[in-house]
Amino acid sequence: MKINGQNQFDNIEEKDLEYVRSKIKETLKNSLPENVYDSLPPSGKMLRVRLAVMLFKKFFKKLSEEHIKSLVALELVHLASLLHDDVIDHSVMRRGKETINVLFGDTTAVAVGDIVLVLAFELVEEIGIEKLRKAFLKVIKMMSVGEMLEQLNKGKPISRKTYFEIVNGKSGSLFGLSTWIPSIFKGDSNNDYYKIGEKLGQYYQVADDILDFEKPEKVGKSTMLDIKNGIISYPIILAFEKESSLVKAYEKNDWKKVYNFIINNKILEQAKDELNGMITKFVQTYSWLNNYVMGIFNQFFK
Amino acid sequence: MKINGQNQFDNIEEKDLEYVRSKIKETLKNSLPENVYDSLPPSGKMLRVRLAVMLFKKFFKKLSEEHIKSLVALELVHLASLLHDDVIDHSVMRRGKETINVLFGDTTAVAVGDIVLVLAFELVEEIGIEKLRKAFLKVIKMMSVGEMLEQLNKGKPISRKTYFEIVNGKSGSLFGLSTWIPSIFKGDSNNDYYKIGEKLGQYYQVADDILDFEKPEKVGKSTMLDIKNGIISYPIILAFEKESSLVKAYEKNDWKKVYNFIINNKILEQAKDELNGMITKFVQTYSWLNNYVMGIFNQFFK
Repeated sequence: MKINGQNQFDNIEEKDLEYVRSKIKETLKNSLPENVYDSLPPSGKMLRVRLAVMLFKKFFKKLSEEHIKSLVALELVHLASLLHDDVIDHSVMRRGKETINVLFGDTTAVAVGDIVLVLAFELVEEIGIEKLRKAFLKVIKMMSVGEMLEQLNKGKPISRKTYFEIVNGKSGSLFGLSTWIPSIFKGDSNNDYYKIGEKLGQYYQVADDILDFEKPEKVGKSTMLDIKNGIISYPIILAFEKESSLVKAYEKNDWKKVYNFIINNKILEQAKDELNGMITKFVQTYSWLNNYVMGIFNQFFK
Repeated sequence: MKINGQNQFDNIEEKDLEYVRSKIKETLKNSLPENVYDSLPPSGKMLRVRLAVMLFKKFFKKLSEEHIKSLVALELVHLASLLHDDVIDHSVMRRGKETINVLFGDTTAVAVGDIVLVLAFELVEEIGIEKLRKAFLKVIKMMSVGEMLEQLNKGKPISRKTYFEIVNGKSGSLFGLSTWIPSIFKGDSNNDYYKIGEKLGQYYQVADDILDFEKPEKVGKSTMLDIKNGIISYPIILAFEKESSLVKAYEKNDWKKVYNFIINNKILEQAKDELNGMITKFVQTYSWLNNYVMGIFNQFFK
């Protein structure tokens, strides 16, 4: 997703992000062979870290070294999931570079992902807060369960409810962790902040689902992956709800019929409108997230 | 590997193992869909748990619930590694059942392995001993690094030194954890007991490497996997050391030449003799492990 200008994130200090990036590099460099380290995808937009930084700044005057460690761990969990996702989706490019699975094979990519995940846990262990360890464990489990459910339902015409169960695991949980972490440091005993991030993760996934129907040149990565891989995305859910006979076509792997229906019936426009509505409602409730949210979803508000 | 009779493990109480098995079942059943749970490989010989139980009995009068939890976690880490190994090796059978990767696809098998690993960590978290958490993290990292090194060196004629580095990660570390766990509960601050298990894991891997040259009917699983997958095993190391020109053949993927050399020059017999020597020396030092070791390696002492 493209983001217009730095000012969209105007309340996040870039130097904090730069420091997190340098710590991530240090951690990875110390534990991976040089040729593997050099082939990792370059640092991305760090949307999850940015979100956590915003909350840290809301709760604390400045970020402590322990806060930074938790952010490094958060981004490493994200990186590990990208490495495994690229294996699963047979992706050849990630952030403009060839993927580890292409360069070194699937098995190496899985092993490197596992190592990165352990590095994240080692940092969380160093911080020494039980609730934080449990939060990370819970989220990793949710991510894996989401992955498993998605695969077990591959090619099946799932319901909206199952779709959101999968989405909450795949995307909601890690965004949820981003807003949960600062609240754990603050001493909150409930999961209210988790739910804020989880919602944002849902919108993010719906946006990603819509963009999967765009041309690869426009979004800068391979597209049409969901429908080809038998993964139900949000536009497909809407298509099923509009024309129930499509379910049969989908079950017969006639995904061209489903695709044509989506294009001919302006389903993508409908999906964008719905997403727009959800986001608008969200920022009314959490107005302090306005700039951040608009920064992520700006292309949906044209 | 076949084990002759229960009396080989005469100082391990079967009811302890049965209890661990029931707790493993309970943990897995609570976290996996029924059809996935039913398709997991059945309980194996639990060599690592048996080893840990022996040491627990040496150090403590009886096993506590916390000890049992650590054993469940240990076996779950092993199960997770089997699930991932079967994906990596494209195995179709495990302990007489079709593998999860065959039944549900590679991605599901990877995700289920990840869930099982998180379940292990949740148990370790419940026990609440920092040193135990760190031990598990260290071992999972070593296992992943071993996997990565093996893959990065695929098809390459590695040295004996690199071979043992990989083996220590792949097999040594989890056996090492088995002997380390009870010593952590006992309060030992050093890693001496880790090293005992690690050595045993090395021998186990060498034995497994030798058996990979046997007929599938004899060992009850697919064989010849290493050489076909470009993985250097102990007999191949010995072949290289005896006839350096084989390195070139190997690099040209002429694995038939390497295989024929191994068969025609009694390399497997040499490997068995060497393993025999290592094991004999080992049980002289750790005589309390005699029955256990002889139980595992009995077929190498004919």
